[in-house]
Amino acid sequence: MQSSGVVLHTDKYQINMMYAHWVNGTHNRKVVFEAYFRKLPFGNGYAVSAGLERIIAYINNLRFEESDLEYLRQQEENYDPAFLEELRTLRFTGSLFSVKEGTLVFPNEPLIRVEGRVIEAQLVETALLNYMNYQTLIATKASRIKNVAGNDILMEFGTRRAQEADAALWGTRAAYLAGFDATSNMLAGKMFGIPTKGTHAHSWVQSFESEEEAFERFAEALPGQVTLLVDTYDTLKSGVPHAISVGKRLEEHGIKLSAVRLDSGDLAYLSSKTREMLDQAGMHDVKIVASNDLDEHTIMNLKVQGARVDSWGVGTQLITAADQPTLGGVYKLVAREGEDGTYQPTIKISANPEKVTTPGIKDMYRLIDPKTGKAIADYLCFPEEQQVIEGSPVHLVNPSHPYLNKQLEAYKAESLLIPVFVDGEQVYELPTLEQIRDYHKEQLKLFWPEYLRMLNPEHYRLYISEDLWETKAQLMKAYMKK
Amino acid sequence: MQSSGVVLHTDKYQINMMYAHWVNGTHNRKVVFEAYFRKLPFGNGYAVSAGLERIIAYINNLRFEESDLEYLRQQEENYDPAFLEELRTLRFTGSLFSVKEGTLVFPNEPLIRVEGRVIEAQLVETALLNYMNYQTLIATKASRIKNVAGNDILMEFGTRRAQEADAALWGTRAAYLAGFDATSNMLAGKMFGIPTKGTHAHSWVQSFESEEEAFERFAEALPGQVTLLVDTYDTLKSGVPHAISVGKRLEEHGIKLSAVRLDSGDLAYLSSKTREMLDQAGMHDVKIVASNDLDEHTIMNLKVQGARVDSWGVGTQLITAADQPTLGGVYKLVAREGEDGTYQPTIKISANPEKVTTPGIKDMYRLIDPKTGKAIADYLCFPEEQQVIEGSPVHLVNPSHPYLNKQLEAYKAESLLIPVFVDGEQVYELPTLEQIRDYHKEQLKLFWPEYLRMLNPEHYRLYISEDLWETKAQLMKAYMKK
Repeated sequence: MQSSGVVLHTDKYQINMMYAHWVNGTHNRKVVFEAYFRKLPFGNGYAVSAGLERIIAYINNLRFEESDLEYLRQQEENYDPAFLEELRTLRFTGSLFSVKEGTLVFPNEPLIRVEGRVIEAQLVETALLNYMNYQTLIATKASRIKNVAGNDILMEFGTRRAQEADAALWGTRAAYLAGFDATSNMLAGKMFGIPTKGTHAHSWVQSFESEEEAFERFAEALPGQVTLLVDTYDTLKSGVPHAISVGKRLEEHGIKLSAVRLDSGDLAYLSSKTREMLDQAGMHDVKIVASNDLDEHTIMNLKVQGARVDSWGVGTQLITAADQPTLGGVYKLVAREGEDGTYQPTIKISANPEKVTTPGIKDMYRLIDPKTGKAIADYLCFPEEQQVIEGSPVHLVNPSHPYLNKQLEAYKAESLLIPVFVDGEQVYELPTLEQIRDYHKEQLKLFWPEYLRMLNPEHYRLYISEDLWETKAQLMKAYMKK
Repeated sequence: MQSSGVVLHTDKYQINMMYAHWVNGTHNRKVVFEAYFRKLPFGNGYAVSAGLERIIAYINNLRFEESDLEYLRQQEENYDPAFLEELRTLRFTGSLFSVKEGTLVFPNEPLIRVEGRVIEAQLVETALLNYMNYQTLIATKASRIKNVAGNDILMEFGTRRAQEADAALWGTRAAYLAGFDATSNMLAGKMFGIPTKGTHAHSWVQSFESEEEAFERFAEALPGQVTLLVDTYDTLKSGVPHAISVGKRLEEHGIKLSAVRLDSGDLAYLSSKTREMLDQAGMHDVKIVASNDLDEHTIMNLKVQGARVDSWGVGTQLITAADQPTLGGVYKLVAREGEDGTYQPTIKISANPEKVTTPGIKDMYRLIDPKTGKAIADYLCFPEEQQVIEGSPVHLVNPSHPYLNKQLEAYKAESLLIPVFVDGEQVYELPTLEQIRDYHKEQLKLFWPEYLRMLNPEHYRLYISEDLWETKAQLMKAYMKK
């Protein structure tokens, strides 16, 4: 049983709101939503935006098929048949702005802005959040691991532990764009061109009478890339000595042992000893691959302990973002079309000041110090405010503490929200995955290391314009008086 | 970009081992693998088996398509073209045994047994584990929540926070089979017939000039099932009073207010006050729905505090199994065909005694006390041991502490591993999801409450037969002498 379309990858309440708007005659009213997250995952200083490729495909494929309409017909809500006919021809005709994949992003920044008919803007909420939340989460986790691993090779090995098939596939893509080098996932290799790596399992060794025979047969079959798993019986007493003896014999036939892989035990001790044994055998260029429930913390600790690992296979902890398996992105209404056809900013009040939304359609800029080339802060303002575009001084207001504000004279500004769909037409051509990966590397260079460190990073600021603050303050005041 | 087939939802090392076996001429050699997990998630006393429907579909659709072969052709391994031709006609021709979905299962129990040519048995490992791990994990989490919620209504609300689309869909199915009553996920409704529920979002309320107007318009559009979200502005000062006044007016038009929904704030306090206000208005049968990052712990605590909630919407914590987002199931070789064509048991040794595999093809039985009708323990033995089938006394050996053993005279035995595929043919017809749900309820009745409680449950035992222990001991001894 395969799911045919994507359109029902949504919540019932979206369909119910679409219907209620349709009954009410307000379904063509224009609205603006922003998707953002409120809190960085893992205690990290930044997140890595990802998911846009998936979202573009989703938007382009958005249509109700006959079987979807037939299903809706059976619902207890008793939707009017004319509404289902409206759905039959529904396509995404709105506009969608997004930060580019690979961009470093921060709490309360609009990562996606959707402008369009309310009937469409509601429909896409669930899937957009589902895609954005997961890939951004995994890209962020991967970026943290890359930060610790430096120039070591990083391989994604988590498919069997991923939360179902899509997570394995799209999580791998997210990991690769944030700095991983390869994956074991063949479907990700096929679909995204990510380099795939893989050796053999313990079961290969168990399939032969002896470990040596198993190694020899494997190397003969795949002479191009011989990596041998050395921990089926005993790593230092059996696996490594056998890998060395087989490696020596293979050399006589022109086959080179590339690496040995450690998948259990004390990786600090075993990798050091293995390195020693390989070096003593003159096999200085045979690499050591390590795996076994690794993450940024274990890799850092192993490095501190002097582990001699060239290549890390990271599985469960990455692909499930085990220490915080959700990003918690939300999708909030920031403006709606008034009776006069113009957009009115809207606000969502909360007893928690951090949860009060920032109203209106906003542009977002990264302000860069022209002297150092480093990012100073991000900045939200209304599109009609021209200061940033003109490069004239801007006034930065802290949205949570508006009495903290400052003037910025000299800066370069990069616009972060780019048009992806305009009036239903895709206007953005997605870069290749390699280009996204390179762009992410460049993004990292834009920030001082203080923002990038794994533990207790500096807090990178998001400011808003004075006009934006005024609008927010007025809307809050109007609400308080009600 | 949609993935066409499922066959590359696997790890590279499977393909490499398949190739190495093919080069070596051993690819048709028969092997037996078992899939199991070693540790229960969440500190629970049991897990709930799930994933079989997905696995059956996977096995039935397993074939290399032209694009898959073309992709393999480009790999750096330089696979022999004749191998790729072998793959072109590859189908699953082996046998697969599994516990039924909804069965209560325990550590080190074979949940799936695969017997077949090594080239097939390796290929399917990754996908089988991916499907089994995730659905079993979520079904277990859902069963824990159901345990605490009692007869309250439970709704799965996690799609936007799930780890990509498949997790939302299959996680919902797992939650439903383990006792959830409904979902917000429309695709799960369409594909599995799970009842769907949904009201409106804060954005609906924000789309109107006043909360009252928003409520009224929503109820008029969907008069059959009016649930109003009351926390957009202020739950007790605005939301609930407006819901009551709108409810009264609706009554005059024959429309009934079904429920109000609380999605933020102190749910214990707010639900009690809301109940009071509804009761004072004579609306005793209007229900209260609560949501906001709930799990079994928060629901239990809210109940202890006297929360008046009829229906719980559970999202992130369930669909990601946030406190332990992976089951960690493994797939281990337990037997292989010897030169003489008979199966030889194999063992995987580990420095950790818990990780030493139990060799051989095994049947699994649930032993039940004929007097109480309650499960005593589970039991593994070789198929050729006939005692259990005959009902004669069995000797139970504790596999970790073999000196702890006992004799069981009177029991009923239920065979847990059922044939699903025999020689490539599907022989098992999957029950309906409702039947699986009922079966899970029956399973729970089979166990004393001590095994089922959320905190510090009793440890339910898995024993092995004396023959099985002898075989394991001999293989360990033979290994130690090497």
